[in-house]
Amino acid sequence: MTFSVENFSIKLKTSRRIQIIDISKEVEELVAKSKIRKGICLVTAPHATAAIVLNENEPGLLEDLVNFVEKIFPRDAEYRHNLIDSNASSHIASSFIGSSRAIPVENGKLRKGTWQNILFLELDGPRSEREIVVTVMGET
Amino acid sequence: MTFSVENFSIKLKTSRRIQIIDISKEVEELVAKSKIRKGICLVTAPHATAAIVLNENEPGLLEDLVNFVEKIFPRDAEYRHNLIDSNASSHIASSFIGSSRAIPVENGKLRKGTWQNILFLELDGPRSEREIVVTVMGET
Amino acid sequence: MTFSVENFSIKLKTSRRIQIIDISKEVEELVAKSKIRKGICLVTAPHATAAIVLNENEPGLLEDLVNFVEKIFPRDAEYRHNLIDSNASSHIASSFIGSSRAIPVENGKLRKGTWQNILFLELDGPRSEREIVVTVMGET
Repeated sequence: MTFSVENFSIKLKTSRRIQIIDISKEVEELVAKSKIRKGICLVTAPHATAAIVLNENEPGLLEDLVNFVEKIFPRDAEYRHNLIDSNASSHIASSFIGSSRAIPVENGKLRKGTWQNILFLELDGPRSEREIVVTVMGET
Repeated sequence: MTFSVENFSIKLKTSRRIQIIDISKEVEELVAKSKIRKGICLVTAPHATAAIVLNENEPGLLEDLVNFVEKIFPRDAEYRHNLIDSNASSHIASSFIGSSRAIPVENGKLRKGTWQNILFLELDGPRSEREIVVTVMGET
Repeated sequence: MTFSVENFSIKLKTSRRIQIIDISKEVEELVAKSKIRKGICLVTAPHATAAIVLNENEPGLLEDLVNFVEKIFPRDAEYRHNLIDSNASSHIASSFIGSSRAIPVENGKLRKGTWQNILFLELDGPRSEREIVVTVMGET
């Protein structure tokens, strides 16, 4: 039994202002690649206008999530940050939703619920390059 | 000094649609059982319609938290997901509140504030079986 | 290669009810002090009326974040908790925003985005003493 930690990077591009991309498969493959059997997987978007959430990848629900973001973090309200940029609502959404999620690892796999997919939430796209850092730490 | 990681499971059932259950005592016992003295404790609800939050277990406040969820994530708004199910608001709440919280471990105990209880937040009950995964990782 | 974990404490005081304090520099110094090269850094406010978020330290945006908190978690709505105290909205905000954030560590530094500063969010100040626990875990 040895302890180990690995940082991996996933790159993707986005095509809409607010967009959800399922990265479950990529993260699961990186957990397998890490050889870690028991521990924690931290999935991080190192961005101030993106977020990570866990939920069901059902097309209607993904649309509901986007609509909810638009409603709670309205793009066109009055913001001081918009005097120098135009994306205050994206920053606020990223701050409060959170740019990372942690998931237990058990028997070399993510210990997550059936309906918990790992979703990258673009909040200020389109962007030609976004990154996700996947940190896996624990017993090999 | 050895590094170790343990995954534990807590099972519970819920009796209302939105309900808060204090699991602090159970989590504290599992931290003691892990023999880990310094590290991190990750408390995860592996569900797409539940959440974990840290806050004070005061009856009035618990009611306020439930009311806040009902207000911000209204059950009866228009959702696409509700064409195939009836719980879109529960999924959205779980996504944004988050289904896990991480807490430092120090001297074999959770290093949390006096008013920080660990609260399981049911968002789509009643359910006959809900699970919480408690991962403790660090130095024994 | 050895595994290690360190808990550090940062103390600060706040002067306004809702206030944002950038603690990035202090956290970065503690990561360096830990000698950990690869792993995870967990930044926790052990308080039920404070939060930690990651975002850009731009004066206009910080004001927008404060205004957003005031709007979504209004101080003067009707709360049951306010029968015994006057800070229900602060508790609710702390619960949902979250009192910690986790950041990957790589090459002995925080692996965070250019615009991701670590921000302590006071939600019930002024307070003469607030604490932040910084846990760094990983390979030295």
